Amino acid sequence: MALKQQVTIAIDLMGGDEAPIMPIEGINIAHQRHPNIKLKIFGNKEIIARQCPDFNFYQYDFVDCPKYISSNDQPSKALRNSKDTSMRAAIECVKSGEAGACVSAGNTGALMAISKIILKTLSSIDRPAICSFIPTKKHPCLMLDVGANINCEAQNLLEFAVMGDAFAAAIMGHRRGKIAILNIGTEDSKGHAILKEANDILKNSGLADRYVGYVEPDDVFNGDVDIVVTDGFTGNIFIKTAEGIGGWMKDIFTNSFNSTHFAKMGYLLAKSQLKHNLKIIDPRNYNGAMFVGLNGISIKSHGGTDALGFSKAIDVAIMLIHSNINKKIEELISQYEIKEFIKQAPINDM
Amino acid sequence: MALKQQVTIAIDLMGGDEAPIMPIEGINIAHQRHPNIKLKIFGNKEIIARQCPDFNFYQYDFVDCPKYISSNDQPSKALRNSKDTSMRAAIECVKSGEAGACVSAGNTGALMAISKIILKTLSSIDRPAICSFIPTKKHPCLMLDVGANINCEAQNLLEFAVMGDAFAAAIMGHRRGKIAILNIGTEDSKGHAILKEANDILKNSGLADRYVGYVEPDDVFNGDVDIVVTDGFTGNIFIKTAEGIGGWMKDIFTNSFNSTHFAKMGYLLAKSQLKHNLKIIDPRNYNGAMFVGLNGISIKSHGGTDALGFSKAIDVAIMLIHSNINKKIEELISQYEIKEFIKQAPINDM
Repeated sequence: MALKQQVTIAIDLMGGDEAPIMPIEGINIAHQRHPNIKLKIFGNKEIIARQCPDFNFYQYDFVDCPKYISSNDQPSKALRNSKDTSMRAAIECVKSGEAGACVSAGNTGALMAISKIILKTLSSIDRPAICSFIPTKKHPCLMLDVGANINCEAQNLLEFAVMGDAFAAAIMGHRRGKIAILNIGTEDSKGHAILKEANDILKNSGLADRYVGYVEPDDVFNGDVDIVVTDGFTGNIFIKTAEGIGGWMKDIFTNSFNSTHFAKMGYLLAKSQLKHNLKIIDPRNYNGAMFVGLNGISIKSHGGTDALGFSKAIDVAIMLIHSNINKKIEELISQYEIKEFIKQAPINDM
Repeated sequence: MALKQQVTIAIDLMGGDEAPIMPIEGINIAHQRHPNIKLKIFGNKEIIARQCPDFNFYQYDFVDCPKYISSNDQPSKALRNSKDTSMRAAIECVKSGEAGACVSAGNTGALMAISKIILKTLSSIDRPAICSFIPTKKHPCLMLDVGANINCEAQNLLEFAVMGDAFAAAIMGHRRGKIAILNIGTEDSKGHAILKEANDILKNSGLADRYVGYVEPDDVFNGDVDIVVTDGFTGNIFIKTAEGIGGWMKDIFTNSFNSTHFAKMGYLLAKSQLKHNLKIIDPRNYNGAMFVGLNGISIKSHGGTDALGFSKAIDVAIMLIHSNINKKIEELISQYEIKEFIKQAPINDM
C-alpha cells in the first residue's frame, strides 16, 4: 500500500483586519487540530517579528515576502503589483503543486484576480464563482456566486449549480443535495429573464430531479435547500444584509444584558443556553469561501474573523483537498451532460 | 379661517394572513388614536359576521363587497377579476376623491397592479416604486424600490431618489436627507453598469449635495443614510433576507430563554431591557409601504403583521395625506430639474 502523501496548505499571513496576529493564532489552532498537515506560511518577517515578538519562525515552513496586498487596493492594481507579495506566493505554491490549497483573509477581489491568473479556470468551466456557507435552521447550505460575477447568463447559473453540487458532496455529505435558484418569489413567473431561462434549463437538465425551483431569501434559512444558486451581485447583497442585521441583533442583545444589574444577572442565568444556541449562527463556523471552478484550491477567509474562524477556513481547505473537489466537478459536468446542455441552450435575449 | 376638511382613509378588511380579524382590530386601534379620522371600510359582510360576531358594522362607514382577492392569486388574474372586490373598491374610493388614501394588507402584486390601473402614474414619473421603512441604529431610513420594478434603468433610480426624498421630507422630517444607491461596495468601480450610470447622473444632478454615493447592505443598518435607492429585485432580496435572519435570531433567543428554568429566570430579569431594545427592530413599527409615484396614496401593510402593525400602516397613510406627498414629489422633480436631467442622460447601453 502506497503511503498517503502529506497534505500541505499555503497560508498568507498578511491578509485580514488583524493580520498578521490573527492568521498566526489561526494556524496555531489548525496545527493543534491537524498535526499531520504541513503548513507553509508566507509573510513579511520584519512586520511579523515586530507585531508578534514571540513567534517562532522555525515552527512552520516560513517564506519571507517583501511585499503584501492591502485590503484597500483595487484588484486590478493589486494584480499588477502582486510580484513578491505573500498572497501571490501562497497561490503560486498551489500552482507548482507544492501545496494542495491556499488560504488568505486578504483582499477578496485581489485574491480572486490573482488566483484566476495563476491557477487558471478549469477547462470545463466558463466562470469560476465564490461559494460560501450559509447557516440555516437545519444544516449549513452553500450559496454561489456571492461576489465573483456581477452579471451572469443563465448558463453560468447552471455551472454554479454543478460546482455547488460537487462542493456539497465533497464537504457536507449531501450526495443528493437539493438545488434552488435565489429569487424574490417561488412562482415560475417571478424574477428577471435570466432567472426564468436558468429555471427552464435546470428543469430539463441532468440535475432536474435535484432541482427544486426558486427559493426566497427568507426561506433559505429554513434549510430545506442545500445549494442556492445566484449571480454574484445578488449573492453578495444577501450575505452582506444577513451579516448586517445579524451583527446588529447580537449587539442589541448584548447591550440589553449589560444595561442593568438585573439584566446582567439574567444573562448569567441564561448564558449557557444562549451560547449553545448562538453557535448555530456564529459566522466563524461558516468561514472559508472557495473560488470554485479554478484549477487549484484557493480559500478566502473573512477578513474580520478571529483565529478560530481562520482555522475553520483551513479545515475547509483540508476537506476540499481530501475530496478531490475539482475532479468531482469535472466528473459531474460530464455526468450530467451539462456542457451539452449549455451548448443547446438558447442564447440569452436580455 | 376655512375649516380643515376631514381626512378619510379607505380600508380593505379582507387582506392579510389573519383577515378580517386582524384589520378589524387594527382599525379599532387606529380609531382610538385618531378619533377625528373617518375610516371607510370594505369587506364581505357574511365572512366578517361569521368570523367577528361582535363586530358593529355601524361603527364605521362599512361597504359590503361580494368578492375579495386572495393572497395566492396571480396579480394579472387578480386584476382581471377585481370587479366587486374589497381591495378594488377601497382604491376606487381614493380615485373618486372620497378617501385621501387606502390601506390593504392583501396581495402586494394585485394591490400594485390595481392601484396603477385605477390611480394612474403621476405625470412627472415614469415608474412608480414601493417605498419601505428600514430600521437602523439611528432612525428608520427609506428604501425604494423594494419590489415593483424588477428591471430598472439608471433614470428610474434617479426618480426613486426624488420620490424617496419627498417621502422622507413628508414623514420623517429629513428635509435634507442623505441619499445613497445600494451596491456591493462603495468604490465607484463597484456594481453593474446601470448603477454606475445612476451614480454619475446623481453626482451631477440637483440632488448632488445630498447624494453620498454607494452604500453596502450591512452599512444601511448604521443609519448614516436616509434614502436608499435600488431596483425592485435587489430591494426585495434585501428586505426578505433581513426579515429571514431577523426572525430566526429572535426565535433563537426566545427558545434559549424557554429551554431551562434558569434561562427562564434569566429572561424575567432581563425582560424589560430586552423588550425596550427590541422595539427598535420590531417590524410592526416599520409597517406601511407606499406605492410612490401614483396619482393617489395606496399603502401596503405587511400581510403577516398584527393589529398594532396594521394601525401603524394607517398612521403612515394619515401622515402622507397631511404632507401632500404627491404635490411634494412634483415640486421636487421640477425643483431639482430631474426631468431635464433624465432627458439629457445618455441612453443606457446595457
